[in-house]
This record gives sequence, C-alpha cells and structure tokens, in this order.
Amino acid sequence: MNANLKKLYEKLKLIRYYEHAEGIMYFDFETCVPKDAMENEGDTMSFFSNQAFKIKKSKAFEELVIDLYKDINSLDYLDQILVKDLYEDYQKAKNITPKMELAMSKVYNQAYIDWLKAKNEKNYKLFVPSFKKVIDISKKQIELRENRLDDLYDNMLNDCEKGLLQKELDVFFNDLKNGLIELIGKIKKSKKKIRKDFLSRIVPIYKQEAFSKYLLELNGYDFNRGYLTTTEHPFTSSIAKDDARVTTHYHEDMVLSNIYSIIHEGGHAILMQNEPEVDYEHFINDNVTNGMHESVSRFFENVIGRSKAYVHLIYPKFIETFEEFSDISEQELYEAINIVEPSLIRTEADEVTYGLHIVIRYEMEKKLASGELKVKDAPKEWNRLYKEYLGVKPKDDSEGILQDVHWTGGFGYFPSYAIGNAYNAMYLKELRKEYNFEELIEKGDFKTINSWLKEHVFKDANHLDPKDWIKQITNKELSAKDFLEYLNNKYKDIYKF
Amino acid sequence: MNANLKKLYEKLKLIRYYEHAEGIMYFDFETCVPKDAMENEGDTMSFFSNQAFKIKKSKAFEELVIDLYKDINSLDYLDQILVKDLYEDYQKAKNITPKMELAMSKVYNQAYIDWLKAKNEKNYKLFVPSFKKVIDISKKQIELRENRLDDLYDNMLNDCEKGLLQKELDVFFNDLKNGLIELIGKIKKSKKKIRKDFLSRIVPIYKQEAFSKYLLELNGYDFNRGYLTTTEHPFTSSIAKDDARVTTHYHEDMVLSNIYSIIHEGGHAILMQNEPEVDYEHFINDNVTNGMHESVSRFFENVIGRSKAYVHLIYPKFIETFEEFSDISEQELYEAINIVEPSLIRTEADEVTYGLHIVIRYEMEKKLASGELKVKDAPKEWNRLYKEYLGVKPKDDSEGILQDVHWTGGFGYFPSYAIGNAYNAMYLKELRKEYNFEELIEKGDFKTINSWLKEHVFKDANHLDPKDWIKQITNKELSAKDFLEYLNNKYKDIYKF
Repeated sequence: MNANLKKLYEKLKLIRYYEHAEGIMYFDFETCVPKDAMENEGDTMSFFSNQAFKIKKSKAFEELVIDLYKDINSLDYLDQILVKDLYEDYQKAKNITPKMELAMSKVYNQAYIDWLKAKNEKNYKLFVPSFKKVIDISKKQIELRENRLDDLYDNMLNDCEKGLLQKELDVFFNDLKNGLIELIGKIKKSKKKIRKDFLSRIVPIYKQEAFSKYLLELNGYDFNRGYLTTTEHPFTSSIAKDDARVTTHYHEDMVLSNIYSIIHEGGHAILMQNEPEVDYEHFINDNVTNGMHESVSRFFENVIGRSKAYVHLIYPKFIETFEEFSDISEQELYEAINIVEPSLIRTEADEVTYGLHIVIRYEMEKKLASGELKVKDAPKEWNRLYKEYLGVKPKDDSEGILQDVHWTGGFGYFPSYAIGNAYNAMYLKELRKEYNFEELIEKGDFKTINSWLKEHVFKDANHLDPKDWIKQITNKELSAKDFLEYLNNKYKDIYKF
Repeated sequence: MNANLKKLYEKLKLIRYYEHAEGIMYFDFETCVPKDAMENEGDTMSFFSNQAFKIKKSKAFEELVIDLYKDINSLDYLDQILVKDLYEDYQKAKNITPKMELAMSKVYNQAYIDWLKAKNEKNYKLFVPSFKKVIDISKKQIELRENRLDDLYDNMLNDCEKGLLQKELDVFFNDLKNGLIELIGKIKKSKKKIRKDFLSRIVPIYKQEAFSKYLLELNGYDFNRGYLTTTEHPFTSSIAKDDARVTTHYHEDMVLSNIYSIIHEGGHAILMQNEPEVDYEHFINDNVTNGMHESVSRFFENVIGRSKAYVHLIYPKFIETFEEFSDISEQELYEAINIVEPSLIRTEADEVTYGLHIVIRYEMEKKLASGELKVKDAPKEWNRLYKEYLGVKPKDDSEGILQDVHWTGGFGYFPSYAIGNAYNAMYLKELRKEYNFEELIEKGDFKTINSWLKEHVFKDANHLDPKDWIKQITNKELSAKDFLEYLNNKYKDIYKF
C-alpha cells in the first residue's frame, strides 16, 4: 500500500472514532436527552465535531490529501473516490478555521433547540433568530469556499445531490408540478368515494410498537444490527458499521402515520445495512447522496408499502394486531392508504400531493437563500403557496412552516425526496424486466427484492455521482416521466378515471 | 482566583467534555446499541476514556495538581477537596501509561459483552476468560499504585467506599449475618401466612411503563432533567448536569420487580438531581461514594417504598392501573411486597434476606481477589454458599453467579448495598426526630422528605469521606445495629412474633 495512503487511513481511523461518538451523541440528542440538558449536550457535540475538524485541518492531513490527489490515478478505484472526496472537502473547508467551525456547529444545535420549542409552542417567532443565523452561516460557509459554484443555492443543492443544479431541477420540478396538478385534477373529477372515517381510530401505542417491529423484520431489517426508538421527527441514523437505527413517532389517533414512517425509515436502514462491506474499509461508506437514500426509503414506503400486493401481505397481521380495524376489508384499507387529498403535513401526505409539498419547499428555499424572501415573512409565503398549490391553510405554524426539522440544518435537502421518487420509479422499471414485482411482494420475498436492490441500486451508490449512478441502473437521465407514469397507472385504477 | 487553579479548571472543563461523551456512550451501550455493534462501540468508548486519561497524565496536568497540592491550605474548602482527590488519583495512576489504560478499558468492555452472552446462554464458561482478565487487571492496577494499602481487597473496597476496610467490614458483616439469621429464624417459626399467588399475574409492559412514570414523579424525580428507558441490568446514570437517567427491566410476570427497581433507581437519580449546584462548578459532583448512593436508593426502595404508608399512598393508582390486581386488598399487597423468603436473585430479594446475598458476594470477592478461590470454581462456591445461607440452589448460572453485572468491572461494589442499608436506618432515626415519617409518606409529601435529605444527607456527600459524613448526620459510626432494629420492628408487626 502507498505509504501516504496508509498514513491517511490512520488519520481517518482516528476521525472515525470522533464520528462514531458524534453519531451516538446525535442519536441521543434526538431521542433521549432531557429538555434541560439539551444545550449542554449540544455544546459537547460541537466540541467533538470540532476536534474531528481540527484533525482534517491539520497540516499533516491536508498535505496527505493534496499529495495523494496529485497522483490520484495511481490509486485503486475505491481509493480514488476517497481521495477525490477528501480533496473536495479540503477545498470547501480551506478558509474555515476550527474556531469558525465551532461557532457554526453551535448555531445548528441551537437552531434545533429553538425549532423544537417554537414548534411545541406554535410560535414561529421563537425560531426566527436561529433561522436567520442558520441561513447566514450557511451562506458564509459557501462564500468562503475555494471551489464554489456561482449561484449560492446551487452550492446547497450540490452538497445534497452532487451535480444536480437549479437549471435542471427547475425543469424537473416544473414537469413534476404540471403532471401532478393534471393528475390531481383527474382525481378530483372522479366519482369514486373512499372511506377514511376509520383512519383516526384510537390505537394504543404498544400495539403500534409491536406492529412496527413486525414490519421492519418483514421488509428485511436486521435487529442484530439495528434498533428502534421514538423521536420528535423520525429519522434513520447510520451510527457505525452494523449499527443502523430507526426512529419513529407514534400517534394514538393516526396508526398509518407510524406505519408508513416505519416503512420509510426502514428503507433507509436497509440501504445502510446492505452497503458493500468494502466501502467501509475504504472510508467511503457515507457517500450515498440524499436523493439516492430517499429513492430507497420512498421505494419501500410507497412503491412497495402502498401497493395492493403489500396490503394483501400485511392485512392478516394488521387486523390481528389492531382489532380496532377488524371490520375494515383489505380493499378498504388499500384505498384508504392511497386516498389523494391535499393536506398540511408533508410526512402524512399521499403519494400524489406529496410532490407539491416539495415544490413549495423548493421554491421557498430558493427565495430564502437569495434573500428575495425575508425570514420574518416566510410563514406568510408558506401559507400562500399551500393555499395556491394545495388549497389548504395551516391553523398555526406548527402545522405550517415549523412542521419540518430540516431548515435547522440549512437548505438543499427537501428536493431529495422528489428526486428520490423519480429515481425509484425509474429503477422499478428495470426490476420489472427481471421479476414479477407484485408476486414478490405478495409472497413477502424481500430477500429477492433486497438482493436486486443490492446488486443494482446499492452497489455503486457510494461510488458514483447521482447522474452516473442512475444512468448505470436505468440507462436514462433523471426525469419526472416514469414517476408520473407510475402514479397515473396506479391512481387510474383506484379512482377509475 | 489562583492562576494554577484557573489553569486546572480549564483542563477539567476539557476532561468534562470527554466524560460527558463517555457517559452518553456508556448509556447507549447499555440501552440501545445493537448486538453486532457492541464490540465496535466498546472500542470507541475505550478510545475516548483513553483520550481523557491522556490529559490527566500530561506533564502539564500533573504539575498543576502537584503544585496545588503543595499549597492546598491556601485554597477554598471545595477546591481543597478537588485537589486532594486529584492528587490521590495522580498517585494511583502514576505508573499506569495511557497504553495500559487503553488495554484495561478494553478488558472491561469485553467482559460486559461476554457476561451478557454467558448470561443469555446460561453458560458461565463463556465468561471465564474475561472474568480472569478483569481480576488480573484489577490486581495489576492496584499493584502499580504508589499509595496502595497493604491488602489487595482493601484497595478495592477503598475505591468504592473510602476508608472502610475489611477489618471493620468483617465485624459489620458478621453482626449483620448473625442478626439476619436470627430474624429469619423468628420469621420461619411464625404461623403467619402471606398470600403471594397473585405476584406472578401477567401485566402488560405498557401498563408497567405508565406506572413507572407515575412512581418516579410521585417520589420527586424531575423528567425535565431525566429520562427513563429499559436495559438488561437496571442502573442510573449521571450523564451530565441536569441529566440523571433511570433504566429498568420489565417482566410481564413480575410486576413488583419493575416497581421496586424503579423506586430504587429513582432514589439514585433524586440524589443526583439534588446535589449542590456549587459542587458541579468545582468539579467534585461525582464524589458521592457507592455506599452513600445505595443508602439513598435503598431508602426509597425499602424504607419508603415497602412501608405501609407508601403502599397506602400508591394503592389506589396501583389497582386503577393494574385491573389485574383489583381483587387484592391494600393489606394483602403490603404483606406480599414484604414477604420474607430465601430466593436466588439478589435484586428480587426481600429486605431481610437481601443482606445475605451481599454477605455471600463479600465472602466470595475476598476469596477471588486473594486467589484462594479459583475463577473456574466460583460457581460451585456460589452455589454452596447459597445453599448454606439461604437454602436455595440455582438451576443454572444465569440465576446464580451470572445474575449480576458488577464483576465485569471488578470487585468492591457489592458491600455498598449492605452499607447503604445500615446508613439509611441510621439517618432515618434522625429524620424521625423532626417529622412523623409515616405521615409525610401517606400525604405523599416528598417535598419535605427530599428537602430533609438534601439538607442532611446530600449536602456534604461530595465533600466528606463516608466516616465523617455519617458521623455528621447521625453522630454515630457505621454499624448494623439500627438496621437490624428497623427490620425487627417492621417484621415483628408483619409476622406477629
């Protein structure tokens, strides 16, 4: 092995200790830490992320990266990926001192604390100062980059989904918006009536817990390398090798909320649990982009989870666990989980209107990043867009602009959800070339499904940029076409238009 | 402020970051981490405890401690305590290099993993290699000390309960053993029949969870500065300021097991939540000895929790939560929780026979530490002693020698439980001089009880060695007398002898 590469690995091993500790602390921060201890724990987290940053900013580390980058072609394929990433990180962080990094990290932690308080108290004003700081610091972070793109928001997008910029995303989102509005129009005109009265029946949380475990295991999640607990805003966390944790939020009167959250987060975790082992050894195991990740989680949540075949598969266990629903037929359940109805909360939205929640966020992020929209005016704009695109109006900001945690960490993530939908509709077509997809689901054959994903979707997710990755799987470029086709086919059948 | 002291504080602040991270990781390790990720997480924990150790072993830190110690009388009272402790730590660790510390830390982590596996598989052999290593490394750690006591086991005891050595403990345990055997004899002769058939009724865990929260809040535990979750072996963890966490273990067929575990651990947490704020600022907030801590947890568990007054207080909520027990009267419940019956599991034992579980462990620890008893022969000796003192025989080692986690961390802790019982019986007498104790409990007036504890028991727990501390509260020295008197009075009434 190249002597410099060996030295680099030693340093990365050290950094991995810090990242492991940070991962555990972050998980603790979101799931366990008591209210009064949050600020203190945030401080400690910032201290450790700063310690790791200091190693990366050390002369020794930077020189290793620069030297290895100079002669990158002499390295193995996976090490080339590693060194290229590190070199880009080096360029990004070149003008950021550890002191600045510490200050930034504290801003993000405080923003989370303030957001949580604001959401609980339904008072956006409590979040405003932190939100402003997050935007300012995100901008500053980018302005200080050596290798930045011209447009500010393009940098933010690029950090989440490398290579995908507004120019293309504007087209993508425009197609998506038009296609969705057209489809929603057809659905609105449909005479089909779907029962939804039973969806708010009270279901004790302990039953939901049991069902969540059943679903995760059914879908192929391995509890020997995972853990399930609760949080405010569900997420999945890749804490370390063999440690991919899922969180959820139970509502007694929204049993489906947890079910689809679990299937979604379980999807993230299944990707994490099936990354090539070798990626971990080469320190590139965290390269999967958000769009790729969301493609998998939403593949499980929607393409699998909301399919007729999946409902058929889980129905017996569903009514066994929840006697509360024993009078509901399989068909009624299937229709109810696919009811299309404009609503306020993104994470509770159906597959069709969901895209519009993202369009709204995409449009707002662009304007907030450019300064065209002021932070103080954001709830007004939020509510205006919800009115315009979805025809609904939040009764307060906790079900409006404060519903999502994402902006406590800056912009750029939301588009990933819509991109993910597009990706998975594209690769679903490939899967169908090899298998009768519905049959696999009905049989509960997740071994075959997950093997296929592993072989085609997961295999190079850490190695390729999104554009090359989706091209490799589907031989096509990102577009909303397959997704819209998938939706139209599915909902034509449900709404009989 | 003394310039050196200021510098010391800076270093201690740094170390506190590491300890905070370690605390979170330890908690995670015991409550969340998936099976397959334990070893990796243990490694990371060891890395960080080693980083903290390195700071303490740095020349700069050691010189500060030595210099401050030389002129200790010029310091404030609380800083004198701090510097004295640090100087003792310095002496203890003088010949231990960071590399040795890292190796030791890994031994303890591995021992925990192996113990858990051995316990689950009911196979002591799986624990033997690790157990041997733990003993060897504990010995080595002591042999390397500059300020060690002559006898090996005395050092181990001293680390847990400063100043209390075998010479005194032999007397204490002898008195305790004789007193308990005499009392058990009286109880055995009693004709009183106590119902216990209902104790194994199945109670769903979600109900136990709700009741646990009720109990903790009732007793004065503050959830804004705390958290409750589950683990294999219940413990309480002081993770940081305003962050004292309680864990428990639910058994569907042993509702009382969780209830008394919760009250016990809650006692630890209430002490943690009521330490003087100033102790935290002076970095002496972790000084409370195990014996002091157990005195409080067992005060809540037994003196309060198993009293007639407490049963009267919680009975209405008990039968409301657990309809399964609606046919059981208050008196029947009171008697059942105080049934005296030799049994196998320490943590499930009644107040009377409990002490004999500790006597057994004390005797075994002494022999294992001296080498008089070989690790491979330990289960045989364990079973022999259980037969002799309690007349019971484990059907396998998981309900025998593997039942407790403590020996994965070395010897010396177990005596604390018995010492704790003795302490709290001693200070209960003082409390009674000021208040009608039963009346306070019946009214649920934990504000007054906890204030009294804070003022008398907690106030100087971080400042005084156990001997001075108990003397200050009670004007007496540790003895089993008050505890035996307490037991005799209580059980005379129950068993009518």
